[in-house]
Amino acid sequence: MGKYAFGVDVGGTTVKLGLFDEDGRVLDKWEIPTVKENDGESILPDVAESLQAKMKERGLGEADLAGIGIGVPGAVDGSGMLVGGAVNLGWKPFHISKALNAYINVPVKAANDANAAAFGELWQGGGKGCRSMVTVTLGTGVGGGIIVDGRILTGAKGAAGEIGHIHIDDEETEVCSCGSRGCLEQYGSATGVVRLAKRRLAEDQKPSVLREGELSAKAVFDAVKAGDDVAQEIAERFGAYLGKGLAAVANVVNPEKFVIGGGVSKAGEVLFDFIKPAFRKYAFPPCRETGFALATLGNDAGIYGAAGLILLGGSDD
Amino acid sequence: MGKYAFGVDVGGTTVKLGLFDEDGRVLDKWEIPTVKENDGESILPDVAESLQAKMKERGLGEADLAGIGIGVPGAVDGSGMLVGGAVNLGWKPFHISKALNAYINVPVKAANDANAAAFGELWQGGGKGCRSMVTVTLGTGVGGGIIVDGRILTGAKGAAGEIGHIHIDDEETEVCSCGSRGCLEQYGSATGVVRLAKRRLAEDQKPSVLREGELSAKAVFDAVKAGDDVAQEIAERFGAYLGKGLAAVANVVNPEKFVIGGGVSKAGEVLFDFIKPAFRKYAFPPCRETGFALATLGNDAGIYGAAGLILLGGSDD
Repeated sequence: MGKYAFGVDVGGTTVKLGLFDEDGRVLDKWEIPTVKENDGESILPDVAESLQAKMKERGLGEADLAGIGIGVPGAVDGSGMLVGGAVNLGWKPFHISKALNAYINVPVKAANDANAAAFGELWQGGGKGCRSMVTVTLGTGVGGGIIVDGRILTGAKGAAGEIGHIHIDDEETEVCSCGSRGCLEQYGSATGVVRLAKRRLAEDQKPSVLREGELSAKAVFDAVKAGDDVAQEIAERFGAYLGKGLAAVANVVNPEKFVIGGGVSKAGEVLFDFIKPAFRKYAFPPCRETGFALATLGNDAGIYGAAGLILLGGSDD
Repeated sequence: MGKYAFGVDVGGTTVKLGLFDEDGRVLDKWEIPTVKENDGESILPDVAESLQAKMKERGLGEADLAGIGIGVPGAVDGSGMLVGGAVNLGWKPFHISKALNAYINVPVKAANDANAAAFGELWQGGGKGCRSMVTVTLGTGVGGGIIVDGRILTGAKGAAGEIGHIHIDDEETEVCSCGSRGCLEQYGSATGVVRLAKRRLAEDQKPSVLREGELSAKAVFDAVKAGDDVAQEIAERFGAYLGKGLAAVANVVNPEKFVIGGGVSKAGEVLFDFIKPAFRKYAFPPCRETGFALATLGNDAGIYGAAGLILLGGSDD
């Protein structure tokens, strides 16, 4: 078996690609545009062509490669099947691993992009050394990736780790993107923080730096660090929701660690001060001391994890 | 490797034991008392002695055995370590697999009893044919056992599947056995149904057969079947809580099926009519069609699952 692997992370705008050695070092990384025309039919051929060009450039043959890992924005089952297609790319359901293997004859493993990113953090990021962990990506939504015994938990329909849609509040009147009301994502995401901030600011006229300028999750946590009382209250509400939701996750899978990434995580470890009180209150006693760490690979987590699927072995495919 | 396995299920009053063949047939089953004196120090020797007597009776040597599986009432990690001891037996933490192997030199696998029971239902019960499922035991409490890709999900500290302690109601005033308030178990268990019934009956004077005789989960579901309106309302509240809690579980692990057992499950499939509306409301769309089935092995699930750990292979040990 070859000792190099490619990691590919297919996004809606660009495809990230990386060449890794068996020690998990990235030797090269680059991007190509994601061409979504004609139901995204050129995306995989473009990836294959780019990888073949890189192999030629580096003098690598198929025998030098342990394989290719690829993360895509859709539910992928343990066999590498894109179960429900990928709306953002225009892709209908198909077997990704087989399709890419038709261009380059090396082992191919496919995974959901959030799951691949989780695997990357386990292999070389904030969860390094863990056997089981949950990544929580606090971005536009709240994403999750679950690793159990060193393997991605995909779920029967590739929908495991959809922790952003755990129901958390019976009183919510606004509708979540999933059609339900009161999902964790409505409070724990970057947009959720802004929603909570608007609600809090509307409650009274207490002075706050947040009443000036544009509201954002960053503005809220910057204000927290500057000692703004209203921002502190908003962060406490955010943490109460997130802590409660993650306690439910811990009671189900009991991970060693939560690894927190996404835009909101740029606030840093101060986040944990807000999340932990509710987490400890609602987690089953043996789960209360679950670790919290920040994600460290940023936007590269996906290519790391995809390559890790090949070099470490982390899926059924 | 031998083709027989023993399955052992250590309970607080009796130890159940069974001899299984590789096709999952139970060839023999029996019980011995659980002797809890002196911190339960004679329990494992008693089990070993009983198994050795059975081997002698059947003319089986160690070479005829694929191994022994054993389920115990405490958190067991993937290596067979009883992480936090077993309060009901007086057991401190120790490595169960090694301890039993010291008496009978065949492979031993140990698991939490609820997880073993889940594995039994997967192998020969309500989840037969599944690769991933969650058992939900509605008894005095609400227990859970999670199987992912044919393996028990134990969790970092053996506490995975503690779904009875998912927080489900912010308004609860009574305290759960775990010290928290508003746990799923306070509504979804047999005792939970009785609590909900008492609350409903106290709300007004609407006539109901439940106002006579002793309140129990069985009485409530018998009254539902007899067309009692108040019982119907109680069952709806029970189902709303349970459906909401199981939706959270589905969003985390996305199983093929929930297999419902325990005393409350004797009400039969009518339970699903009450659980499914809230489940579908709160589950992430790809999880909404998760199957529901009744457990079929009853009190034998534990010995089936313990033997299955050996004959199918379902833990790390």
